[in-house]
Amino acid sequence: MSACEFESLEDCLETHLPQAELTEVKRILFGKETKKLELPACAVEAASEHDFELKGYRFEAAQEQLRPPRRIRVGLIQHRIVLPTDAPILDQINAMHSRVGEMVEVAAMCGVNIVCFQETWTMPFAFCTREKEPWTQFAESAEEGNTTRFCQELAKKYNMVVVSPILEREELHDTLWNTAVVISNSGNVLGKSRKNHIPRIGDFNESTYYMEGDTGHTVFQTQFGKIAVNICYGRHHPLNWFMYSMNGAEIIFNPSATVGALSEPMWPIEARNAAIANHCFTCAINRVGTEKFKNEFTSGDGKKAHHDFGHFYGSSYVAAPDGSRTPGLSRTRDGLLVVEMDLNLNRQISDKWSFKMTGRYAEYAEELSKAVKQDFKPNIVKE
Amino acid sequence: MSACEFESLEDCLETHLPQAELTEVKRILFGKETKKLELPACAVEAASEHDFELKGYRFEAAQEQLRPPRRIRVGLIQHRIVLPTDAPILDQINAMHSRVGEMVEVAAMCGVNIVCFQETWTMPFAFCTREKEPWTQFAESAEEGNTTRFCQELAKKYNMVVVSPILEREELHDTLWNTAVVISNSGNVLGKSRKNHIPRIGDFNESTYYMEGDTGHTVFQTQFGKIAVNICYGRHHPLNWFMYSMNGAEIIFNPSATVGALSEPMWPIEARNAAIANHCFTCAINRVGTEKFKNEFTSGDGKKAHHDFGHFYGSSYVAAPDGSRTPGLSRTRDGLLVVEMDLNLNRQISDKWSFKMTGRYAEYAEELSKAVKQDFKPNIVKE
Repeated sequence: MSACEFESLEDCLETHLPQAELTEVKRILFGKETKKLELPACAVEAASEHDFELKGYRFEAAQEQLRPPRRIRVGLIQHRIVLPTDAPILDQINAMHSRVGEMVEVAAMCGVNIVCFQETWTMPFAFCTREKEPWTQFAESAEEGNTTRFCQELAKKYNMVVVSPILEREELHDTLWNTAVVISNSGNVLGKSRKNHIPRIGDFNESTYYMEGDTGHTVFQTQFGKIAVNICYGRHHPLNWFMYSMNGAEIIFNPSATVGALSEPMWPIEARNAAIANHCFTCAINRVGTEKFKNEFTSGDGKKAHHDFGHFYGSSYVAAPDGSRTPGLSRTRDGLLVVEMDLNLNRQISDKWSFKMTGRYAEYAEELSKAVKQDFKPNIVKE
Repeated sequence: MSACEFESLEDCLETHLPQAELTEVKRILFGKETKKLELPACAVEAASEHDFELKGYRFEAAQEQLRPPRRIRVGLIQHRIVLPTDAPILDQINAMHSRVGEMVEVAAMCGVNIVCFQETWTMPFAFCTREKEPWTQFAESAEEGNTTRFCQELAKKYNMVVVSPILEREELHDTLWNTAVVISNSGNVLGKSRKNHIPRIGDFNESTYYMEGDTGHTVFQTQFGKIAVNICYGRHHPLNWFMYSMNGAEIIFNPSATVGALSEPMWPIEARNAAIANHCFTCAINRVGTEKFKNEFTSGDGKKAHHDFGHFYGSSYVAAPDGSRTPGLSRTRDGLLVVEMDLNLNRQISDKWSFKMTGRYAEYAEELSKAVKQDFKPNIVKE
C-alpha cells in the first residue's frame, strides 16, 4: 500500500479494532467523541453526484444561564486541481471556480455560515518549479480580482462568509503576496490577511515569489464570530496562532498546501495544539492529489529532475479547544467538511483551564524583547 | 475495558492492524519509525526482576563531515507511589528512593547519561486534598535536602546527570516551590528550575501550595548537552517551551503528574508540538497508578467527596525535532524509557525547516509588548 493509496486513518482504525479497544484508542487519539452531524439528503446526493466526500460533525458546549448558544457552521473545502497545469490559465481558473462553486452550493444546503478554501485555491501549487512564468499570471487583486468577485457572488447568494486564499497581486507596485481575502456574508470585502511566515524547505520555493506578510494578526469580526487566517507554514509557528488569539480570534483557519513525505506526521499535531493552547477552534485545510508540471525541475535534494510535487494528502480537520478533533477528510478525494460548533465552548474551556490567565505574558514580552537584541545573553548555567 | 485497564495504544495497534495498514497508520501518527535500542541482557533481567517495564529506542541523525555524532542516552522514569499515603512520611520518601534507586541502576546498565524523574517524585500528588498537613512536610531544600543528597550519590556513582523534581522548601523564608533540581554527573548541584505555570483546574490545587516560579528559563549546560526542565502544566504554554529553546535548550524535560479523564488526549500533542516547533528533543514523563487518601475531599465538580485523584496514565515518551516520537511507556506500570538521540539532529532539522530563521521574533516581541498593556487595542476589523 503506497502513501497515496491509503484513504483514511480513522476508517482504518474503525475497520480493524475491536469495539472496546477502538473506544479507548479514539479517546486517546482524538479526545471526546465528536458527534456526527445530520446533513440534508439533497446535500448528500449532490455530493455523490459531483463525486466529492461530504462529512459532518458537531462540537457541543454546555448550556449556560446568561448566554444563549452560539452555534455556527463552518465548511472546509479541499480539492484537486481540475485541469492540467499547462491548460490556458483562464480555463484553469474558471474550472476551479466552477468546481468550488458546486461544492459551496452543497455547503449552503448544509447551513454553512463560514466557508474556507485551501491555500492559493485557484491555481496549481506551482512554486516548486521556480519558474515565474506562467504562474505569476494567476495572481489577482484581493479587492477587485475576478476570484474575489466570484466569491462575493457566492457570499451574497448563500449569506455566507467566504475565506478565499489566493495569490495576490498588489497592482500599485506589482508586488505579489500569499493572501486570504475575507468576504462578509453581505458580499463586501471585509479585509485580507497575508501569509506571515514563508517556507524555505523542499519544493516550497515560495520565498522566490512573495515576501512575509505585512498585515500582522488581523481578526475579522463577522456575523458568525471572530475569525482569523493563519496561512500554511504559519502553523509551524506557535507565536503566530497565539497572536491571532491575543487579538480575539475564536476560529483560526489554516489553509494549506502540503505533501506527505514532508509533513504528514506533523499535520494532526500543530493546528490541534494551537486549538488547545489558545482556547479556540482551528480549521486545517490541505489540498489533494498530485500535480504534474510540463517542465522538469529539481528539488535541491540531490535527486534527478522530475515533474511533480508529490502527494497532497488532504486530511482537512477541525480541532476544538477541549483537545478533541473531528476525523479528517479523505487523503485522496475532494471533500467538504461541515462542522457545527458552539463558540461558547471557547470561554467554557478558558474558564476551566485558564491558559490566558496563567500565561504570564508580561514576563514573556520582556524576555522575548531581550532575546531578539544583538547583545542577548542566553541564560545558560555551567558547572 | 476501563481507562485504567487499557495498557498501551501502540501495542493495541500492533496487535490488530494488518501489516500494510499498520505501516501507514504508524507513519501518520508517529512519524519516521524510531528504531529499537538493543539493551544489555542484565538490564532486561533486572527490570523483569524488579517488575518494571524497560523499553529502548533510538533517534538517528545523518553523518556530518565537520561534526562528530553527539549521541547521548536519556532515561525517563515513571512510577507509582510505593507505600500508602498515610504511611510515615520518612518511610514513604525512603521507599521511593529505594524504588527509583533500583530503576536508576538499570538505567546505568543501559548507558543512560541523563535521567529524569517524574514531578514531585518523592511524594503522592496530594495537592488534590487541599490539606497543608502532612504534605508540606515532604518539602525539602533543593541544595541540601536528603533527596538531593541521594541524587548526588546516584550521579557520582553512575556518572549520570540527574533531574530530580521535588517539592522544594526554601528554608530562609519557608516558601514552597515546585522545583526540578539539576545535578551534574560530577555530583554537584548545577542549579534548579522552578515550575513557571501553576494550574487552577480540577484537583490540581497547586496554587494553594506554591507560586509561579521565579527562575525564568534557565538552561543547564551538561557534559551531555544543554537541557532545560518545563514542569507539568507548563507544557500547555507554547511560550514556555519556546523561551527555553531561545535560551539554547537541546533537550527539554517535562516531568508531570496528570490524570486520564482530564488531559490524556492532549498528552501526545503538546510536548511533541514543542519538539517540532523548537527544533529540539522533548521528554514527557507522567506518573502511574491511582493514589488514595485517607481523608475524603471534593473536587469542585458538584460530585460527592471521594478519596482518590483518578488514574495517572503514565505513557511517558520522547519526541524528536523531525516530528517523530517513541512509543509511550505503559499506561499502568512502572517503567524506564531509554532513548538514544544524536543531538546533531536538532541543527539538521533547523537547517531543513528553519523555524528560528523564519520566526520574525522581533515583530512578535513588539506585538506582545503592546498586547500586555492596559491600553491594548486588539486588531479587529468590522464591517
